[in-house]
Amino acid sequence: MNQNKIALAIHGGAGTIMRSEMTAELEQEYRNGLQNALSIGWQILQTGGSALDAAQEAVVILENFPLFNAGHGSVFAHDGKNEMDACLMDGESQKAGAVAFVRNVKNPIKLARLVMDETEHILLAGAGANDFAREMNVELETDDYFFTDFRYEQFLKARKEGVVELDHSPDEIKIIEEEQQQSAEKKFGTVGAVACDSYGNVAAATSTGGMTNKKFGRIGDTPIPGAGTYADNQTCAVSCTGHGEFFIRNVVAYDVAALMKYKNLSLQDAAREVVEKLRAIGGEGGLIAVDTKGNLTLPFNSEGMYRGFVAADGEFIIKIYGDQK
Amino acid sequence: MNQNKIALAIHGGAGTIMRSEMTAELEQEYRNGLQNALSIGWQILQTGGSALDAAQEAVVILENFPLFNAGHGSVFAHDGKNEMDACLMDGESQKAGAVAFVRNVKNPIKLARLVMDETEHILLAGAGANDFAREMNVELETDDYFFTDFRYEQFLKARKEGVVELDHSPDEIKIIEEEQQQSAEKKFGTVGAVACDSYGNVAAATSTGGMTNKKFGRIGDTPIPGAGTYADNQTCAVSCTGHGEFFIRNVVAYDVAALMKYKNLSLQDAAREVVEKLRAIGGEGGLIAVDTKGNLTLPFNSEGMYRGFVAADGEFIIKIYGDQK
Repeated sequence: MNQNKIALAIHGGAGTIMRSEMTAELEQEYRNGLQNALSIGWQILQTGGSALDAAQEAVVILENFPLFNAGHGSVFAHDGKNEMDACLMDGESQKAGAVAFVRNVKNPIKLARLVMDETEHILLAGAGANDFAREMNVELETDDYFFTDFRYEQFLKARKEGVVELDHSPDEIKIIEEEQQQSAEKKFGTVGAVACDSYGNVAAATSTGGMTNKKFGRIGDTPIPGAGTYADNQTCAVSCTGHGEFFIRNVVAYDVAALMKYKNLSLQDAAREVVEKLRAIGGEGGLIAVDTKGNLTLPFNSEGMYRGFVAADGEFIIKIYGDQK
Repeated sequence: MNQNKIALAIHGGAGTIMRSEMTAELEQEYRNGLQNALSIGWQILQTGGSALDAAQEAVVILENFPLFNAGHGSVFAHDGKNEMDACLMDGESQKAGAVAFVRNVKNPIKLARLVMDETEHILLAGAGANDFAREMNVELETDDYFFTDFRYEQFLKARKEGVVELDHSPDEIKIIEEEQQQSAEKKFGTVGAVACDSYGNVAAATSTGGMTNKKFGRIGDTPIPGAGTYADNQTCAVSCTGHGEFFIRNVVAYDVAALMKYKNLSLQDAAREVVEKLRAIGGEGGLIAVDTKGNLTLPFNSEGMYRGFVAADGEFIIKIYGDQK
């Protein structure tokens, strides 16, 4: 086993997380979800496992956690079904796999891994991606599994109001005639993980349940390598969360890598610059990133981001509000 | 009207274009198709129109031309239907619009424009994108319109052999159990245009019929801003053609811009470096790019690329084989 510094960071979405709406019990639940994801990923890295496996398995835990908008806790699309996107990228091979709006797949990130490992493609979407899931015999769940009361109430509320929500709060996306009033509170629902393993390989994984009440087969940044997810052993691994369209336009995940590669910026400076550029165009959100030396950064321009990482002394640090590392 | 140097380049796909399979008549047909696209785009630019409109309308002509793999000439997916992807991006606003596997839409690039202009989204895919097309009342065509004998024979041949083709030649993508022997001849079917208008704004547009016999809702680089299409007035506009997965992994279109922005490379040097990086990982194809000064470059690493541009003296230059500008 190489002596490279292993590193792991995770996120559960960025946005305005209102302290007034948070109870001590709810906050503890969120912390437990993040803690469990860090535990699994860290165990893999400590026992010589790959960054790719660590990132993937941390995301599996976050997908299974009902309070984050991914897997089990996914929001409802316009027809009352859950549609999910996921992507992972391996810095060593620079290979990637992704799926967009898959249904009934328990862990979309595992399906993304199969796209990477078993096909020559990168991104499979819609009915075709669901056919692929069945051919691969991945674990499926009935609609009931994805039916969490919390999300369903959000969906009914959003459909009634004719708005499209990002995660579970009243941010709306104007889509055709469905324009509505703006709201101050915004949240963006995505989960993600980045890891550096003992061999100095980096990897990133991201998964989302998308936007409540979304229509028209909208694909956000999550399943797009370069936009919401990126990894390359030359530079870093990045997983994003935020208002997807801005992340696509700014090619956010790859832009962090490009600034390191072409301008010799540090991981932290590159990530900060990219998040500031997003702020300048009104793109709310954040990202987590790791370089091949095991350095971590978790910047965001929103009021909060559910996030966690393992400190140099092995302590698990979990944060929800401001106070950015 | 500003005195900026207007510029226009187009492509109709890259790959091995065998002189032995080309007749004088067929070559003249290809040249006419490219010539018509240049004419339309150039007229728009000369009369003070926008780079975005010029790129879009040049692509409309290429979509309507039956010999290129886009719009009218699209290849057949696994179920014998045509599925098409398109994307455009405006360098001035840095806004983008894209659609993936739409069916029966006469001009997918026009639908991409409506995604950009009429929604807050960037990428719509599958059944949802088709619903959007109907809501927008875009021009639809029956299956017959897309049924060109040439493409259909290709499809039947590919389905029989169990291979997935890029454009109309025997390149195959291994997909699950459908592995087949390699072939020397490859072609990639995409059309695209990049333009710089008299105000110094740049824009890019790309459209494709995808791969013959494709399954599983595969999305390539064409509809992904940053991968197959990119435009930004800070740097350049780029439209790609080639083996899509490699273009996604390398974030090709944005990488040209990043090399200009962060390493101060010229358009030509940046584009050449990106195409060489593709060659190094076996990613066959090419790109066309324009900067805000009206400089053009059209590099490719394949044996040929259907391409055209307007020279400094206003002459339309059309090329098919090597001899790169």
